[in-house]
Formats: sequence, C-alpha cells, structure tokens
Amino acid sequence: MTNPCIICVAITGSLPTKENNPAVPITVAEQIESTHEAFEAGASIAHCHVRDDQGKPTSDPDRFAALKEGIEKHCPGMIVQLSTGGRSGAGQARGGMLPLRPDMASLSVGSNNFPTRVYENPPDLVDWLASEMIAYDVKPEIEAFDLSHIFQAAKMHKDGRIRGIPYVQFVMGVKNAMPVDREVFDFYIHTVKRLFGEDAPWCATGIGPNQIVLNEWTISSGGHART
Amino acid sequence: MTNPCIICVAITGSLPTKENNPAVPITVAEQIESTHEAFEAGASIAHCHVRDDQGKPTSDPDRFAALKEGIEKHCPGMIVQLSTGGRSGAGQARGGMLPLRPDMASLSVGSNNFPTRVYENPPDLVDWLASEMIAYDVKPEIEAFDLSHIFQAAKMHKDGRIRGIPYVQFVMGVKNAMPVDREVFDFYIHTVKRLFGEDAPWCATGIGPNQIVLNEWTISSGGHART
Ligand SMILES: [Zn+2]
Ligand SMILES: [Zn+2]
Ligand SMILES: [Zn+2]
Ligand SMILES: [Zn+2]
Repeated sequence: MTNPCIICVAITGSLPTKENNPAVPITVAEQIESTHEAFEAGASIAHCHVRDDQGKPTSDPDRFAALKEGIEKHCPGMIVQLSTGGRSGAGQARGGMLPLRPDMASLSVGSNNFPTRVYENPPDLVDWLASEMIAYDVKPEIEAFDLSHIFQAAKMHKDGRIRGIPYVQFVMGVKNAMPVDREVFDFYIHTVKRLFGEDAPWCATGIGPNQIVLNEWTISSGGHART
Repeated sequence: MTNPCIICVAITGSLPTKENNPAVPITVAEQIESTHEAFEAGASIAHCHVRDDQGKPTSDPDRFAALKEGIEKHCPGMIVQLSTGGRSGAGQARGGMLPLRPDMASLSVGSNNFPTRVYENPPDLVDWLASEMIAYDVKPEIEAFDLSHIFQAAKMHKDGRIRGIPYVQFVMGVKNAMPVDREVFDFYIHTVKRLFGEDAPWCATGIGPNQIVLNEWTISSGGHART
C-alpha cells in the first residue's frame, strides 16, 4: 500500500473536561491553537466537537462556525470534520452545523449502547443527516460502533443516501459496545474491502488507552490513524 | 457433531396479525394448540410472545402464566421460553413474567436499530433483567442483533451477570440491523466458539423468508434451529 497515511486529530472529544486533563482545549481559541500544532506535526483532518461557555458539549452552529473559520485560516488545506454525534445534541440539532459546508462530518448510521445509556440514532434522523450532507456537499465519516453499521453504510451507499465510497471509522473500546478485539478489527477491514473495494479508505479509534493499540494495528494494516 | 438438533418453535412473533396470516395463533388457546402440534412434530423449545384482547403485543404476566400452564400441561417436557423483548412492553414491564420461573427467557444485551425506530435496551435495564433471571433461575437466550452483543454476553457471563454458558441466538435480516450474510454468520459461529468454547450451543433466526435460509445454514453448521 503506497497511499500516504492520513492522520486525523480529534482535538477535543465530547466528554473530557479541564478537570480530567488541564491540557484539553475547550475554548475555540484553544482549539484553533491545538489544531495548528497538530497540523504542523502532520495531521490533515481535524475532527471537531465544540463546547459552550460552561465547557459542556454543544452542537451550537455559531461555535462550529468560529472553529471552522479559525482552522481554515491557521491551517490552510486541513480537512475540517464536524461531529454530528449524539453526545453534543439531540434530534435535528445534531445537524445544525451542516449548512456551514464543512469538508466532512461524522455520521452514525445505527444505534448501540454506551456506558450508561443508549446511543440513539433512529432511522429517520440518520436519513435526515445523510440527506443534509448531500445537500451541503459534506463527506460523511461513518462511525461504526458495531459490525452492522458497516453494512448499513453499504446499503445507504447503494441506494443513494450516501454519495461516494463511505469513509468508515471503526470505534472500539466503548463500554457496552464493541470491545477492542483483534479478530473483530481484522474482520472489519475484510468487510470494508468486500463491500467497498480493496482500496476503500478506513480508520479506527479506540477509547482512552486503547487509542495507541488501535493506532499500531491500523497503521500496520494500511488504515488511517486517529488521535 | 452428535448433539441432537434442538428445534425451537416461535408460535407467535411480536408483530404478525390475523390480517397478515389467518393461521397465526393469537389467543392463548390457539397458541397452546399450535405449540402442541409443533411439539408432536419434534420441537422441544417454545419461544412465546402473548397478545392482549385486541391482538396487540403485551408483556402481561397473567397471559404468560396461562400460556405457560397450558404448554406444560399439553406438552410435557417441552422447554418454555418467554420473550422479554421490547416490542411487547417497555422498561421493567418487559420482565414482569420472570417470577413465573419459565425454563428460559429471551435477553437482549445491546441496542440496535429496527425498521422504523431504535430497539432500546439500556444498560441498567439489561442488568436488571439479567438479575431477575438469576433470581428466578431462568436460563437466558441472548438475542444477538449485532456482533458486539455476543461480546457483551461474554462479559456478563465472565462477571457473573449471566449464569452458565450463554445460549446465543443470531438474529439476521432485520431492516436497519444485521442483514443475512453468510460471512457474518460464519464469523458469529467462530466468535461463539472462541468466547464460550467449541461445544457452546447457538441458534439463529431470520426474519420472514430469510428463516429458511438461516435454517439451512444453521443445521449444516451444527446449530439449533428456530421456526
Ligand atoms: Zn495558529
Ligand atoms: Zn467525535
Ligand atoms: Zn421473539
Ligand atoms: Zn393439545
């Protein structure tokens, strides 16, 4: 595989606070500076969540607009990926930033359990988010928390709900969802290649200390890396 | 494999009505007679849902009690498995029949999408249903709508939330969940054997016309069959 490895930096997840780690960038200014450092170190995709004035996750389009503008100014050519994840909002509020036309946005296509609750992605919301991504020319990154999510992305691609070859991210190590398991990881890759072709791009993320394990597996298997 | 194949008969699903198929047994009397026929034909597990007077799915413990009593009387030795599925009730009402101490009950350990909604099995409800099954000595059948559900059953078995080797059922062909796919089916079997041992029992069910496909795969692969 001679494709260059894409490094995607997730500067601020949906959960960590300054109390967890003082280095977590929370304000838009902190996020832009942190992304800039990662960009100079070689990262080419910025996966973005935003916080409100209290530091809580939000889907506020104005925050996303400020962050997107700052990254585009400070990190020319970097791909901006905004999160439509359900930890930052509910219902269609999750897609309120899509009219900003970011390069990419995350898209969950199925539901699963999280540590203390159900991660709800009802079929009609998934379809609406996907249609907004088509309307605003946003490339989705499919968040595969389980195997069926890869098949669902394939079905949506086939019937036109997703344009282009889906870019799938395997999410492993979330409590009550898919654990970090090497055989499953290999089967995920096999399934992506079977459904989308040998050259289909994919990446993987592990929660907390699992990230480094998944980075090793991913880079040695021809996938793209995520911080 | 010299283990006999167990045939589990699902006399009444959670959805079909008399309008869909006049042969669907809806009343408890019809269900008992239908189970009796299947029992005489060789079925050894009865997977049971019940309906209310309007023919709608319910978790009413009194209905379940009448059905269980009738099956035990007419079909001596048959294993009675009651559904705790989310199409018949919500929250802890789904487990209201467990004090009847049926031989088995279905247990969903994760969440996933259904055709038009999220099939919600929040972690605290899953744990409560599992603890009720231990309290009333009910053997769970794990409903695996996706791959992570098999891993979740393994984790619950390991930390004592499920007693004995879990009996896993693969559910395939539900729209927006896992499709009927032979490679996934084989990986499911491989995963069950890896997590629970070579001799761990498993079965599979397919929705609608997929049932016959899955029966062929299942019987030729050493699994137990479901109608
Ligand atoms: Zn800068
Ligand atoms: Zn994210
Ligand atoms: Zn059932
Ligand atoms: Zn009879």
